[in-house]
Amino acid sequence: MNSAPLSGLYAPSLSLLTDLYQVTMAYGYWQQGMQDREAVFHLYFRRPPFDGGYAVCAGLAYAADWLQNLHFSADDLAYLGSLKSAKGGVLFPQDFLDYLRDLKFTCDVDAIAEGTVVFANEPLIRVQGPLLQAQLIETALLTLVNFQTLVATKAVRIREAAGDDTVLEFGLRRAQGFDGGLSASRAAYLGGVDATSNVLAGQRFNIPVKGTHAHSWVMAFKDEAEAFTAYAKAFPDDSVFLVDTYDTLEGVRNAIKVAREMRANGHELGGIRLDSGDLAYLSREARALLNEAGFPNVRIVASNDLEENLITSLKLQGAKIDTWGIGTQLVTAYDQPALGGVYKMAALRKPDDSGWDFTIKLSEQLAKTSIPGILQVRRYENEKGQPRADMLYNTAEPLPDQLTIIDPSDYTRRRPVRADAPYRELLEPIFRGGELVHQLPTLQESRARAQREVLSLDPSIRRFLNPHTYPVGLEESLNTFRTNLILEKRPLRPA
Amino acid sequence: MNSAPLSGLYAPSLSLLTDLYQVTMAYGYWQQGMQDREAVFHLYFRRPPFDGGYAVCAGLAYAADWLQNLHFSADDLAYLGSLKSAKGGVLFPQDFLDYLRDLKFTCDVDAIAEGTVVFANEPLIRVQGPLLQAQLIETALLTLVNFQTLVATKAVRIREAAGDDTVLEFGLRRAQGFDGGLSASRAAYLGGVDATSNVLAGQRFNIPVKGTHAHSWVMAFKDEAEAFTAYAKAFPDDSVFLVDTYDTLEGVRNAIKVAREMRANGHELGGIRLDSGDLAYLSREARALLNEAGFPNVRIVASNDLEENLITSLKLQGAKIDTWGIGTQLVTAYDQPALGGVYKMAALRKPDDSGWDFTIKLSEQLAKTSIPGILQVRRYENEKGQPRADMLYNTAEPLPDQLTIIDPSDYTRRRPVRADAPYRELLEPIFRGGELVHQLPTLQESRARAQREVLSLDPSIRRFLNPHTYPVGLEESLNTFRTNLILEKRPLRPA
Repeated sequence: MNSAPLSGLYAPSLSLLTDLYQVTMAYGYWQQGMQDREAVFHLYFRRPPFDGGYAVCAGLAYAADWLQNLHFSADDLAYLGSLKSAKGGVLFPQDFLDYLRDLKFTCDVDAIAEGTVVFANEPLIRVQGPLLQAQLIETALLTLVNFQTLVATKAVRIREAAGDDTVLEFGLRRAQGFDGGLSASRAAYLGGVDATSNVLAGQRFNIPVKGTHAHSWVMAFKDEAEAFTAYAKAFPDDSVFLVDTYDTLEGVRNAIKVAREMRANGHELGGIRLDSGDLAYLSREARALLNEAGFPNVRIVASNDLEENLITSLKLQGAKIDTWGIGTQLVTAYDQPALGGVYKMAALRKPDDSGWDFTIKLSEQLAKTSIPGILQVRRYENEKGQPRADMLYNTAEPLPDQLTIIDPSDYTRRRPVRADAPYRELLEPIFRGGELVHQLPTLQESRARAQREVLSLDPSIRRFLNPHTYPVGLEESLNTFRTNLILEKRPLRPA
Repeated sequence: MNSAPLSGLYAPSLSLLTDLYQVTMAYGYWQQGMQDREAVFHLYFRRPPFDGGYAVCAGLAYAADWLQNLHFSADDLAYLGSLKSAKGGVLFPQDFLDYLRDLKFTCDVDAIAEGTVVFANEPLIRVQGPLLQAQLIETALLTLVNFQTLVATKAVRIREAAGDDTVLEFGLRRAQGFDGGLSASRAAYLGGVDATSNVLAGQRFNIPVKGTHAHSWVMAFKDEAEAFTAYAKAFPDDSVFLVDTYDTLEGVRNAIKVAREMRANGHELGGIRLDSGDLAYLSREARALLNEAGFPNVRIVASNDLEENLITSLKLQGAKIDTWGIGTQLVTAYDQPALGGVYKMAALRKPDDSGWDFTIKLSEQLAKTSIPGILQVRRYENEKGQPRADMLYNTAEPLPDQLTIIDPSDYTRRRPVRADAPYRELLEPIFRGGELVHQLPTLQESRARAQREVLSLDPSIRRFLNPHTYPVGLEESLNTFRTNLILEKRPLRPA
């Protein structure tokens, strides 16, 4: 088992991809007869990543796939049955394992489409259904959505910095595990990169794949020019030569020599790649050499720990780079390698089924206190379809006629809503009664959505440094309800 | 396909888990008739992670599994056959795809055992075999070894800070993809954590699994005490109560109330968990409350973005914490989320098979220039088995009688080796002719090795801030050979 950790790992079941406490709580709810009490949970984050003004959500297709296949296999149950309590007895009795064996996922799931621009506190996913099930799926949903949202957002930022240049993702070798690489390639493409080096991602997700060659290719030949000639023979119309194995500008000269031979045979060199050194200086020198030699169309590809701020800086320095190869910084979201998404209970049917108890998790900081209710996100847009403000409201309560949006971290900031303001509701039905009821978009469709959505944001929200805060608030009656609930739950300590 | 990204993903083949350029280079070598030229590659890193003094290597079991299953399935080949060149023709001709279909892995692989302490520039894996194959496996080896080595090293550091306290890993929800979580749980256990919350990791790798309950458990009941009572009913001998849903110290008082009821029924509360707020203050207050109430053995578990420096700080502040729950910071290696491991060609048989050409990749910095040869790592130890210095040498050349170790980044630093100095050779045979010839240790054995190895290091090398640099150098004749090769390859530019 230890010596073959990959083999057959993901068949037949990924249902144990969870924290043990989900299973212990499931047992507790089952023992209390609470397993079918209807509950509502929201998945959301509290701050956009990278000190940015927004995120682009991603990962829903993975989450939906996981939910569709949720079941406990005989192996899963045998393992759970083998767990021991501190006193040596079984942790889970057989009748509970029998219950898990027969468990079918029956929740309703609403979610915001992949590629949508989202902000702090907005539920990306809302789960409504039997308490035991709605709790059980927490960890997998967070794992699958947190990371892809993080990488998609990073990719959007890199795309923003690169403008119309080509952006390639080739981070697999530095990714966090093979799915760290695979799902990063997916999310990066969703966020706007043009292609990946990851062949498995190309195959699975229909992402264009690109590649050049390694330093070792050059080292395998007598000299650099011979290596380039051999590569051009293999790929006469798709060659990009890596020129820095020994000396970058000598490499450019060798590339030009071989490009001339190629041209004599009716082919054109595609590009050269710089992978080290001062990219601003070297790209300008390389461009000048190529232009002088009659190769103004040979593209210059650059790589070496690039990210949005370095791209911006290189452009300001007049670097002559046409294609940006992005690896580690993108696929690990290096400057913030985790999105702090959380999954909080927000409503629970009363034991006598007479209505809802709306629930809250307190915190010393108001911003970290959860939001009760069965929430929907309403996005108000102007006539051009540009987002103006988002309002979270409780769908389980009637809305007042005059709507006002209150900033949850500063109740003095309030924004009345015009009665005729156009809007759209972001959460849409994905599962009903455990059945997938939504035609999930293709990755290419989600990618197009991301590009459209990001461009509709005001540049002040998109900028990297100290972006403007997009207004997201609670509908006034929800804010009042939440405030009262906090006061009710928090102990009063005399000063 | 897009709508079911997980289903059946990892059967039957993970062989496309690579960069496209590995396949394009393979085609180029095959076209040149160079596919079977014998080559040697080394996988190594240039700097220990986290500004530390060492790393603990991990991931070899994954890599060996991947190599054992390396083959191109019909689906893989169909995908590669579908790729188009810029001009619209096929990228790879059918006879090359036929070659890939019949390809069998036949390389020799030597590697350093998982759990071994390793340093910059030391080959963790050495691959010797047909050029095409030895190149093709680069990306997967890097992906599988880079990340697990990173996390194992982070876990060792956290273990060092925690001393004899219990350390739990529960980072799955913030991990980078599901294998980012799964392989992190494996590597964290290898590095010394005591248990994981990740049930799949528990099942696959026989790691102890642990868990408490979430805030939502408390929110699902009328009040906190009722929630604790219900949990204690489910797990009378395994309960740890999360006390900060509404107010931490009120939570501790409720825990004590329920602990008294439990004791009346013959059970003892296992612990309480603090997940927010000032952990130094709250743990001391909680400890005092528990002790006063007659519960000195109730453990205090703390979590909330902890890592080795915070643990050290909390201990210095007199925090009363028995068990450390570590999530995001460990499984994403938050402060350095990628290890920059590389895979460089170091030797290639001469075309006429008359011997080896030793190969080098230059860089502006000497420290980033590769090391030629067919390397072995010899570790000199003192009589207590403590490492004293490591020597890299070229096994393809005879060793001189008097050995001297030269620092590769400062040739004036040299260390003669006593003729009778005891040593061990770190790279051991794993594959011969493509067949696994090594009984890979269990994860538990690798974990024991890691603990033993780390403890054998001098504390000055283990410390977090500005650690002492452990001496790793090149055997003198190798250093001389490398220096000459650099001078030969680097163009001379007149000043």
